[in-house]
Amino acid sequence: MADPTLIERADILLEALPYIRRFAGKTIVIKYGGHAMTDAALKQAFAEDVVLLKAVGINPVVVHGGGPQIDRMLSDLQIPSEFRRGLRVTDAATMRVVEMVLAGQINGEIVTMINQVGGRAVGISGKDGNLIVARRVAPPGAEGDIGQVGEIVGIDPELVASLEQRDFVPVIAPVGASAEGESLNINADTAAGRLAEALRAEKLLLLTDVTGIKDADGNLIATLTASEAERLIASGVVTAGMIPKVECALQALHGGVQKVHVIDGRVRHAVLLELFTDQGVGTELGRDAIAPGKRGGRASTRARSAG
Amino acid sequence: MADPTLIERADILLEALPYIRRFAGKTIVIKYGGHAMTDAALKQAFAEDVVLLKAVGINPVVVHGGGPQIDRMLSDLQIPSEFRRGLRVTDAATMRVVEMVLAGQINGEIVTMINQVGGRAVGISGKDGNLIVARRVAPPGAEGDIGQVGEIVGIDPELVASLEQRDFVPVIAPVGASAEGESLNINADTAAGRLAEALRAEKLLLLTDVTGIKDADGNLIATLTASEAERLIASGVVTAGMIPKVECALQALHGGVQKVHVIDGRVRHAVLLELFTDQGVGTELGRDAIAPGKRGGRASTRARSAG
Amino acid sequence: MADPTLIERADILLEALPYIRRFAGKTIVIKYGGHAMTDAALKQAFAEDVVLLKAVGINPVVVHGGGPQIDRMLSDLQIPSEFRRGLRVTDAATMRVVEMVLAGQINGEIVTMINQVGGRAVGISGKDGNLIVARRVAPPGAEGDIGQVGEIVGIDPELVASLEQRDFVPVIAPVGASAEGESLNINADTAAGRLAEALRAEKLLLLTDVTGIKDADGNLIATLTASEAERLIASGVVTAGMIPKVECALQALHGGVQKVHVIDGRVRHAVLLELFTDQGVGTELGRDAIAPGKRGGRASTRARSAG
Amino acid sequence: MADPTLIERADILLEALPYIRRFAGKTIVIKYGGHAMTDAALKQAFAEDVVLLKAVGINPVVVHGGGPQIDRMLSDLQIPSEFRRGLRVTDAATMRVVEMVLAGQINGEIVTMINQVGGRAVGISGKDGNLIVARRVAPPGAEGDIGQVGEIVGIDPELVASLEQRDFVPVIAPVGASAEGESLNINADTAAGRLAEALRAEKLLLLTDVTGIKDADGNLIATLTASEAERLIASGVVTAGMIPKVECALQALHGGVQKVHVIDGRVRHAVLLELFTDQGVGTELGRDAIAPGKRGGRASTRARSAG
Amino acid sequence: MADPTLIERADILLEALPYIRRFAGKTIVIKYGGHAMTDAALKQAFAEDVVLLKAVGINPVVVHGGGPQIDRMLSDLQIPSEFRRGLRVTDAATMRVVEMVLAGQINGEIVTMINQVGGRAVGISGKDGNLIVARRVAPPGAEGDIGQVGEIVGIDPELVASLEQRDFVPVIAPVGASAEGESLNINADTAAGRLAEALRAEKLLLLTDVTGIKDADGNLIATLTASEAERLIASGVVTAGMIPKVECALQALHGGVQKVHVIDGRVRHAVLLELFTDQGVGTELGRDAIAPGKRGGRASTRARSAG
Amino acid sequence: MADPTLIERADILLEALPYIRRFAGKTIVIKYGGHAMTDAALKQAFAEDVVLLKAVGINPVVVHGGGPQIDRMLSDLQIPSEFRRGLRVTDAATMRVVEMVLAGQINGEIVTMINQVGGRAVGISGKDGNLIVARRVAPPGAEGDIGQVGEIVGIDPELVASLEQRDFVPVIAPVGASAEGESLNINADTAAGRLAEALRAEKLLLLTDVTGIKDADGNLIATLTASEAERLIASGVVTAGMIPKVECALQALHGGVQKVHVIDGRVRHAVLLELFTDQGVGTELGRDAIAPGKRGGRASTRARSAG
Repeated sequence: MADPTLIERADILLEALPYIRRFAGKTIVIKYGGHAMTDAALKQAFAEDVVLLKAVGINPVVVHGGGPQIDRMLSDLQIPSEFRRGLRVTDAATMRVVEMVLAGQINGEIVTMINQVGGRAVGISGKDGNLIVARRVAPPGAEGDIGQVGEIVGIDPELVASLEQRDFVPVIAPVGASAEGESLNINADTAAGRLAEALRAEKLLLLTDVTGIKDADGNLIATLTASEAERLIASGVVTAGMIPKVECALQALHGGVQKVHVIDGRVRHAVLLELFTDQGVGTELGRDAIAPGKRGGRASTRARSAG
Repeated sequence: MADPTLIERADILLEALPYIRRFAGKTIVIKYGGHAMTDAALKQAFAEDVVLLKAVGINPVVVHGGGPQIDRMLSDLQIPSEFRRGLRVTDAATMRVVEMVLAGQINGEIVTMINQVGGRAVGISGKDGNLIVARRVAPPGAEGDIGQVGEIVGIDPELVASLEQRDFVPVIAPVGASAEGESLNINADTAAGRLAEALRAEKLLLLTDVTGIKDADGNLIATLTASEAERLIASGVVTAGMIPKVECALQALHGGVQKVHVIDGRVRHAVLLELFTDQGVGTELGRDAIAPGKRGGRASTRARSAG
Repeated sequence: MADPTLIERADILLEALPYIRRFAGKTIVIKYGGHAMTDAALKQAFAEDVVLLKAVGINPVVVHGGGPQIDRMLSDLQIPSEFRRGLRVTDAATMRVVEMVLAGQINGEIVTMINQVGGRAVGISGKDGNLIVARRVAPPGAEGDIGQVGEIVGIDPELVASLEQRDFVPVIAPVGASAEGESLNINADTAAGRLAEALRAEKLLLLTDVTGIKDADGNLIATLTASEAERLIASGVVTAGMIPKVECALQALHGGVQKVHVIDGRVRHAVLLELFTDQGVGTELGRDAIAPGKRGGRASTRARSAG
Repeated sequence: MADPTLIERADILLEALPYIRRFAGKTIVIKYGGHAMTDAALKQAFAEDVVLLKAVGINPVVVHGGGPQIDRMLSDLQIPSEFRRGLRVTDAATMRVVEMVLAGQINGEIVTMINQVGGRAVGISGKDGNLIVARRVAPPGAEGDIGQVGEIVGIDPELVASLEQRDFVPVIAPVGASAEGESLNINADTAAGRLAEALRAEKLLLLTDVTGIKDADGNLIATLTASEAERLIASGVVTAGMIPKVECALQALHGGVQKVHVIDGRVRHAVLLELFTDQGVGTELGRDAIAPGKRGGRASTRARSAG
Repeated sequence: MADPTLIERADILLEALPYIRRFAGKTIVIKYGGHAMTDAALKQAFAEDVVLLKAVGINPVVVHGGGPQIDRMLSDLQIPSEFRRGLRVTDAATMRVVEMVLAGQINGEIVTMINQVGGRAVGISGKDGNLIVARRVAPPGAEGDIGQVGEIVGIDPELVASLEQRDFVPVIAPVGASAEGESLNINADTAAGRLAEALRAEKLLLLTDVTGIKDADGNLIATLTASEAERLIASGVVTAGMIPKVECALQALHGGVQKVHVIDGRVRHAVLLELFTDQGVGTELGRDAIAPGKRGGRASTRARSAG
Repeated sequence: MADPTLIERADILLEALPYIRRFAGKTIVIKYGGHAMTDAALKQAFAEDVVLLKAVGINPVVVHGGGPQIDRMLSDLQIPSEFRRGLRVTDAATMRVVEMVLAGQINGEIVTMINQVGGRAVGISGKDGNLIVARRVAPPGAEGDIGQVGEIVGIDPELVASLEQRDFVPVIAPVGASAEGESLNINADTAAGRLAEALRAEKLLLLTDVTGIKDADGNLIATLTASEAERLIASGVVTAGMIPKVECALQALHGGVQKVHVIDGRVRHAVLLELFTDQGVGTELGRDAIAPGKRGGRASTRARSAG
């Protein structure tokens, strides 16, 4: 295809204008994971997006996962893994590996990647500055005891807020500490959602490996209210893999986050396109006060067929 | 032509990124005039560009002219006009009209236009806050006396600087006052240049009704150093109408402005395209330290045929 | 008469002391018009008063009218004027003249005058920084349609407040813009009153061409409460020309302005004398909570015969 | 005499204007003593002057003496006094009385007097916040030993500066402490002069019991340069009692104080009249750069016969 | 006894840690008097304690008494003293002496003492900055008239607060002024208590010449609630001399002070030891919400025999 | 031994006073390693010391090593290690382990330890916020190539400085990134030294597993100048293991650090005792301007026999 013309270029910049203005000074928490974190081109594009956001005055906060890398390291160290109801049983040896991989490997890679394209990222974990205080989901020996797997009991956002103010990009490994100082493994989606609440974030973006949320006919849904989303779960339209994402989104909306976006991390520059174009690349969830089928400040309804 | 694809959209936004970052917090003085100030579509596009700049943290300052509108009002009031060496002989009655039209008509229209697309413009003249102190180019009765035509003797940028800090867009009518309080008509290009110096502006943009500066073969020159520009004048390549623009640019560069752009105001969104794309829509003049044929931070040489 | 003695000089300075202290840091909105705006000596004295206020830490805000000058320009341009119920029917051509004269001529003259005696005035209109948002008093074609005559629907005081903070003196032409960007002519008294409310001004001063408000016996009334003023209107003691002034004052008092002064602009330095002497040069209106016949902080009742 | 007319009142206020503006935010150190500190009416007027200065944004700093009161208390306590070359021999018992009277009696009276007319005075001595560090003029037992009489070796103006910033009026008793913590009696004129230097004061005012400095013909001199003053001393025109005042003034001028005024404290509101009228009530000393016979910003030469 | 070992040294520093952290940035008002103000070694130790507090970020405010010194000076001046119900009948001559001794002698000595060990003390009285506004306990001529003895009607803490902010140590003589400017003698304990309330002090420390408050068996009570203290008074366990101290403490607690300590000023470094060791050197009184027998943050109950 | 008496307690607190005051607001960089990082009691004591420093207004910055833990993990992963001239040959697989252990294990443990005793530590590496920019000591393939071992080419202290300002304790893993984003292993002593320079630290503390620096007779040297230290190296008195420590110290002194302390990390609370007692627990190195054998502000010479 031919190069975009001058006027097309201007139009794209101008389309981005109301979004840039609306989000300036706001915090946007991004849960980063899946293909976007393993494919080299997607990684580079993600880092560029993060730096662009900061350049136009938006404060991105990145929370990352790391399941596959943890599996590999456990296997290298010949530490066997057991899962119960989808959660890894995490004994002390396993937790040490989880923390090393998340905080000592993946976190640093993301930081370097962002810094390489001109940003100033700072990698931290939930233990730093008492950011995430957690407790075991079940006490040792109790029923359901799966070791050092934690649920969040408190967030102290001051460290992240002060990094934001100094124009650093916080990159957060989802590891917390208990009141007694025990390291605990935290679900990354949940950590991102709770952080978004505590930071009074404008948006929470969940990068996934699917197109977004689809309706019963398999068409991508552009925008969705909380109660519509609940109905989609109840009616079985939202499929198994997507349910925890949607539940995380609902929890964040109830906790005061303005919008949650479930977006397709396989699209290059997905973050940029979702935030700064009318079209978007996923599904935007908002609270019920917003009329269904309408995206805040956007003219079109964005309902279109997936992919 | 087909819509730009997602990746084209992302690329255009990303191309703009280094420029947005580089100019954030900087002042850009724009001399506004010609077709861009009379054509309805161009006016609207100009106002949108100004608001976009502010939205991404750049401080635009607009200085406008108004020759044709002054002519019309003088004719309506049956006040005859005389020109000497290109300058209007400005007696008291004429000056009253000049000021009324510039400060009371055109200035207010630009302000309204910018505010209509979401900006917060403030119209002032050089008399406000002692912004422009001037003196007659020739004393009354002396040789060359052409009445209330002024040359600038001092700029007090505090008013403009404080409007910038509060995120207003200053729109300036080129009327100054003498130390004795006499209103004086000031050339708008000169006023824009001197303001750019006093404000330590990053850039001065001169909107013209031509494509930019061309070389001996009639090709648009993308970038030019001060001494190259002087050679083009000396060798007669720069034509009569363009000479005052180039001289104004040279003066501003000598006065400390980083870059001066002579751009084609007939292109919609000329300001946006010149600032945020590699390609640009005119000629960029820089100081001699910068190697010829290279545009700061741009890969391409931008030499292309005018057309 | 002999020169005031040293002790008389000291007494006058000391009499001013409590007023200077009480008003320091406060905003005082002055509606400027009538003889005070046409007589050369009165103009000079007015400018000196404004600069003195600023020098002692008070923030004067000037709102001006300009009826006679508009009449003259309309006549010069052979544009006929029609009045309905005291309001000028303002078609597009008339409005253009109104705006040119107010914002492009009178406003600049006042600015220059103040700057000439050492002030730093900045001339703006209600369009600047969205200061005055207005709408037509009657829609086009509707009954009572008199064209571009506006009533105020909103005031955004930020521009004026930020000029004050930087120690500029705002001089305001009473022209507003509608939400659609149409210029509208606003009554200057009303504009001054509404501005005083929005700025939480300490005082509103209305300069008139009469001595002040008189009682049934023709004696000047030194101080007046809102309900006393309403009774004077009801009983027909306040005469036709003064009624709109008093109504403007009552509206401002209800809107939160502490005091409104109707003063004799024909007295040189009327502003200074009204603010800084016990005697004053007009009538001070306050809210009902203040006991009748008592001027805040003044010992005497100030009732004296006019003339 | 008849009351000053309105226009006379306005003129007096306006005459004060340039002085008020010029001195706003500046520090003026006043040495307070003599009749002005004993006569009830003069005391009241002095306190009013101090409060007026503060009200118009000037920072007065008061340094006081107290010789007669000290004499009286020493006599009440039957402690004999001895003087050597004009300086009181100050043994430990005498010093205790000096300090009690200055810091515990006179200082508090001045504070109360100023507070009674609406000021916020704070009484301190040179010991507070290490304001005045001094040493004995002669060591114990050495020739010239007169006990606890000190000369200043250092001024730390921070305490006074921070009181000024919070809009308190510092009232200072001229008692200092040596590095070893010994209380020392300091000459009040000298203390005022050194403080004026350390505070980079605009003016030092010395209240005396005479009309000012007179020339050889007995006429009051309105203004004087440093070298003229030195000539007057050399030629014997300046008489014995005035010599230390003039030397104190010269020292302060050399130390960077802009102007020193030797004024007649017997005139009511002498401070106010000297600062805010063209006429003044004493002699103004300036540095040599200032042309003789001209008072900064004043039209008249002020030479007049002493009355 | 042998020198403390390294580990003992470290333990003492570490024991102080939670106290230093808890009190950082807080105000602690200390009523200074008794032996601690007359014994040379105790004076030196007290000054060192005050400077240490400031060094670790705590804001000490010292209020002092001075009865014995006043007695001596009255006797030197042969002014007879009369007491009624424990209060000195204070005629004008007596009051002059009281003020001279408190503000002109003792206050300066404390200031010098603190400055000698590295502090920056500033001596003021309640008259400065209108800190203490008082009225006579009985009007002149009325029953119970004992002259210039005052009770506090208002505290304006701004002067003290601003001295604290600039890291000066305020040292306050308990002399106030009436609304009419009359000097009044104020009880020092009461002044300290009211100041502690107005400054929202963390603690009020009352230095006494006894071990602290004892129980019926003569054992020192480490901690006490307000109602326990009331019961001890009611049951006659608290003896006569201690009653006014306890009542002062109760009043301060009711007024919002967190803790009041009645400590043994005869112990060297009593202030330091009370604040920074678990053991303490007196009795700590708190509000009823705190469980009896428990000292905030301390492990031990601290009940021990006096002696 | 018996408990320290009250007076001993007070003396220890008072001895600490001048040090607390002198170091308030200053940065102290601590290289943490050796036994102090492996023994449970020493770890706890170290964390308490760090928190105490912060509590009294000092800004500790911790840089840690981790050789033994890295060895263990490499062995667990069966990655063989090779050393050349004391430096580990660091291929990509080894570097990944180095980074995981330093940034993902040890760093987090120190953070948790400090937070457990009341601090607010934040763990970062040299990659965060571009803190440490490094390059390989030898390029790939060149002579001396030992892989990803880096030398520092630049420090950007902003991240650490902003954490300090918000009262976090930075804990730094000595891993840097090259300009191309390659992770590089940095010597921890060197990193601590360079950070101390960049932060204009008051002190650099190197925790070692020896008593300090000894003289030819085996006695501990309390204080040492730079040139004395150079002589001790030249004369062979400083033994092999200590040489790199002393060279690191000399480099830091040349780079502007005030003092470097080589202390015995095997003593509990070594940091506290070195900083806050006259006696200290190691050797203090200062620049040559400081007279030999004298420790700033300490009375004793501190020369004592080791052990």
